[in-house]
Amino acid sequence: MSKSTLANLETLRKEMRSNHVNAVIIPGTDAHQSEYVSAHWKMRDWISGFTGSNGTAVVTLDDARLWTDSRYFLQATEQLQDSGFVMMKEDVPGEPTIMEWLASTLNEGDVLAIDGTLFSISKANALEEFCGINGFRFVPDFAPFDKIWTERPQRPQGIVYIHDEKYAGESVTSKISRIMTEVHNAGADCILLPALDEIAWSFNIRCDDVTFTPVAISFAFLSDNQRVLFIDNSKLTPDVKQHLASANIEIMPYAAVGKFLSSLKDYESILIDPTLVNDTLGQAIELPKVYAKSPVVAIKAIKNNVQIEGTRNAMQRDGVALVRTFMWIEDMLKSGNTIDEVDVWEKGKEMRAKSELYRGDSFGMIAGYKDHGAIVHYNATEESKYTLAPEGLLLIDSGAQYLDGTTDITRTITLGNPTLDEIHDYTLVLKGHIALGSQIFPEGTRGAQLDALARQFIWNSGKTYLHGTGHGVGHFLGVHEGPQNIRLNENPALLRPGMITSDEPGVYIAGKYGIRIENLTLVVEAFENEEFGKFYKFETLTLFPYDNKLIDVNMLSQDEIDWINAYHDKVFALLSPSLNADEQTWLKEKTVHLSK
Amino acid sequence: MSKSTLANLETLRKEMRSNHVNAVIIPGTDAHQSEYVSAHWKMRDWISGFTGSNGTAVVTLDDARLWTDSRYFLQATEQLQDSGFVMMKEDVPGEPTIMEWLASTLNEGDVLAIDGTLFSISKANALEEFCGINGFRFVPDFAPFDKIWTERPQRPQGIVYIHDEKYAGESVTSKISRIMTEVHNAGADCILLPALDEIAWSFNIRCDDVTFTPVAISFAFLSDNQRVLFIDNSKLTPDVKQHLASANIEIMPYAAVGKFLSSLKDYESILIDPTLVNDTLGQAIELPKVYAKSPVVAIKAIKNNVQIEGTRNAMQRDGVALVRTFMWIEDMLKSGNTIDEVDVWEKGKEMRAKSELYRGDSFGMIAGYKDHGAIVHYNATEESKYTLAPEGLLLIDSGAQYLDGTTDITRTITLGNPTLDEIHDYTLVLKGHIALGSQIFPEGTRGAQLDALARQFIWNSGKTYLHGTGHGVGHFLGVHEGPQNIRLNENPALLRPGMITSDEPGVYIAGKYGIRIENLTLVVEAFENEEFGKFYKFETLTLFPYDNKLIDVNMLSQDEIDWINAYHDKVFALLSPSLNADEQTWLKEKTVHLSK
Repeated sequence: MSKSTLANLETLRKEMRSNHVNAVIIPGTDAHQSEYVSAHWKMRDWISGFTGSNGTAVVTLDDARLWTDSRYFLQATEQLQDSGFVMMKEDVPGEPTIMEWLASTLNEGDVLAIDGTLFSISKANALEEFCGINGFRFVPDFAPFDKIWTERPQRPQGIVYIHDEKYAGESVTSKISRIMTEVHNAGADCILLPALDEIAWSFNIRCDDVTFTPVAISFAFLSDNQRVLFIDNSKLTPDVKQHLASANIEIMPYAAVGKFLSSLKDYESILIDPTLVNDTLGQAIELPKVYAKSPVVAIKAIKNNVQIEGTRNAMQRDGVALVRTFMWIEDMLKSGNTIDEVDVWEKGKEMRAKSELYRGDSFGMIAGYKDHGAIVHYNATEESKYTLAPEGLLLIDSGAQYLDGTTDITRTITLGNPTLDEIHDYTLVLKGHIALGSQIFPEGTRGAQLDALARQFIWNSGKTYLHGTGHGVGHFLGVHEGPQNIRLNENPALLRPGMITSDEPGVYIAGKYGIRIENLTLVVEAFENEEFGKFYKFETLTLFPYDNKLIDVNMLSQDEIDWINAYHDKVFALLSPSLNADEQTWLKEKTVHLSK
Repeated sequence: MSKSTLANLETLRKEMRSNHVNAVIIPGTDAHQSEYVSAHWKMRDWISGFTGSNGTAVVTLDDARLWTDSRYFLQATEQLQDSGFVMMKEDVPGEPTIMEWLASTLNEGDVLAIDGTLFSISKANALEEFCGINGFRFVPDFAPFDKIWTERPQRPQGIVYIHDEKYAGESVTSKISRIMTEVHNAGADCILLPALDEIAWSFNIRCDDVTFTPVAISFAFLSDNQRVLFIDNSKLTPDVKQHLASANIEIMPYAAVGKFLSSLKDYESILIDPTLVNDTLGQAIELPKVYAKSPVVAIKAIKNNVQIEGTRNAMQRDGVALVRTFMWIEDMLKSGNTIDEVDVWEKGKEMRAKSELYRGDSFGMIAGYKDHGAIVHYNATEESKYTLAPEGLLLIDSGAQYLDGTTDITRTITLGNPTLDEIHDYTLVLKGHIALGSQIFPEGTRGAQLDALARQFIWNSGKTYLHGTGHGVGHFLGVHEGPQNIRLNENPALLRPGMITSDEPGVYIAGKYGIRIENLTLVVEAFENEEFGKFYKFETLTLFPYDNKLIDVNMLSQDEIDWINAYHDKVFALLSPSLNADEQTWLKEKTVHLSK
């Protein structure tokens, strides 16, 4: 990679010089502020060689830096070797931020440039203000990549398909009507939707333009009288066109969105989420803007009964696939076959793909054996992969996209005889996982209030984990979605019935092992009384046993033991009808009751 | 009260008419935004008759309203009878706020007036903006009370005394130097201190101008070269003058602060906390202002070793006084004497006053018997008081100001044979109190993250409490002080070693009983390791047993039982040397070990 990135860097600098640009920032996102981006938008990978999910490149005429977070320090160090880029540490006290570095590197009057389609309005505004304070000039429309990246992949050409109402549980017309109510409540009379998952949800369409999240590259515009989907015509089948037409949705070319927005006149004001709409589109709009959070986020987060029932069914098929995957691992090891982390990944995919509703994985499986488990976002490669042996811990974090729901589960198992430390830490993580999963809480509770319940036992042992305890999950959409989460940081979003959220505490001992236990949960009503109001609880959706060999029952209360036994009973009851006799025997053993 | 308030109201309206004022807002605070205010500033009480700690009066030419929160609905309803005022409910969905009510009551062009000395800059700015939006005129300097309140009490004339360094643990010079470092860090070169407790702390002085908090009515100004205390000269003894002079502190009259501020010239900019400095003073300042949180809040919250040792000693004396008070209650009931809630209050004061370091109570004792315990801020009066009988629960929340520390403790006891519900609820509250009090947590943790630990068991039973779980506590200063607390609401302040915070979950069954258990705790270091960093824990400072008769040991884990037994051992070990034989026997019985 390094040789080509050096050449790419030189090409970019030539373009910078001829445009009088002194510095350019190249982020890792796309024109829709997506978490996962298609090859067409991987400019940052192209220029730097770094492929991690979080990283921002900054290029000046004689320097080049790449900022990433602690998950990727190792990977970035390797990938940036001889690339012309120096790695910079994000969120590490004492290390300069991008702005701090630019402030000390550029001179007054220098030009800082960005491609405004890759920056949200909020981020672009912050940069413009930064330039104003420091006496730099700000160019928000420097977009040289079509010219200099000669082999730049096209925009993805995936074929759109309908997400049937029997899975979605609500018609497009009903969804649009609910969105427009919120648009009017916010004081606007139209809205631009730039987020790919919001468009897919609103119009009951899906596509495979982006890995892991089944969305189509598009924009959407909604008002009471006009509904427009901006999308390349070649992506639409007659069926989909008919589906859209029946909901009165016009089709316009993807590239026409800017011109359409700039010519809007017949509206009072447009609702714009400044954290989602890109700056170039923001500049194009002449209508008065109402800046607010996209109302789709909050609506989409509350799953309807069809989505919930679908997710339960998806969990059942997912559990069966996992039984077969984990059995296969055990069988391979027992029979002396050589398998590695990548084989586990492939077997998981193969088993899940047996479901006819399977449409791919929901993220890149993490199969971390021994010390690889302590690397929080480890993805095994042909170069890095470990061969498994009958000893040590294996952490598997995986999930799938099914037409009826999205899954995400982490289990940590021992492949041999666990050490006392492994059992102790696993049990602490499990106690936190149960404490959160079994907590009842009043209406009005935020995720950040519950986060410490999952951490309390780990903290008491002098350990902690720095990732969130829970993230929202979409329905056959993003495996990470808002507004709610359960984390150390404050987030004002409330936990509401119908939300699906993960419960995944962990502990990571560098150089030794990683332990994480993750279920998806549904917020449901627990009870209501006149004096104290409504209370909610979590229903566990994920179906797969914990590893009893890693549990020290003496560290558990009777309530915790009862909780595990009841969960294991449920797992067996719901999975066993789809298993053959051998598989049932295996699962029976894995779900045997614990007692002191 | 009602007859005089009607006359007072008429006098005010006459003054409003002659000044062309259509509405005036009269808050319950003073020129220092104090929590407890002296009689001089009780304009709100004078005009409305309402005496609660939270309430805001709004008077128009033909209407008068008083906003207060749910703690005071009952009291306000009674006190406002025939007063000309209508009670308005604060923080109740659907009920209009003051601004909403004014917006619908006043006409365009009408004049809304305030006495700007009673409003922080932030609050006055919000009102000015509100008037701008609604087309009202805003008058920020309508101060008629000196004229119309003919019997208005003088400003308090308490005599200032030195808070000896043997209690304070740090010299005035050192404190001012630390404050000025933060002032410069914030980009200013001088600061106005309006908060009475901050001035008392900074200058190592105390006074009895205000009930419950030992402070003197004053302002202070600090820069590198000039230190001024604005205070009435009659309050200062030669000793105190010498103490202040030795720290290079000039004395100026209290009333001179405005003129002093308006004539300031030789500074670059002044640090102003807009939530503490009153609007009238804010208007007087012509220097450029740096708006920031007062740096004294964060510095003062971290107690030094002398303050901590002093607080431990104060807790020991406080515990002894409580042993005698609770023994006396038992003895009175056993011997058939008639005692009531007010008697308990007076006995508590009497027992605490035996300490020569005692300087008064730190707040009005709450002695709530039976259903009075369910009224969260209940203060017994001659009219409301219950006579105690050998049955039911008694909740006692009390605290004292000693020269070496401030105390605040709540205990709930049964006076007879408790019901199963009482035992169940008490044990749930105790479990939450222990869960929070025994939690270890990493550096960087905020109180709101730990709040749910205290609530988890109560929530699981379908109950909750709406007050905070913990508040910061001063050192021979305010029993409520910032920046930290432990509550449902987010607060970015971190819990740091040296902070004193309460741990006081509760549960309140309207019409039946209230249960609250409160200790003060100190944040101390727990351990540190290279991989996971620093961890902190709470050391319990308060010394008094829980009521074993209200504990269901079958609801406790062995860890919880061990925690209670260890605490009771500590209580006995530290209190018994100061007790006589009878008292020792009593305490021995109260601290007997629990077991399943």
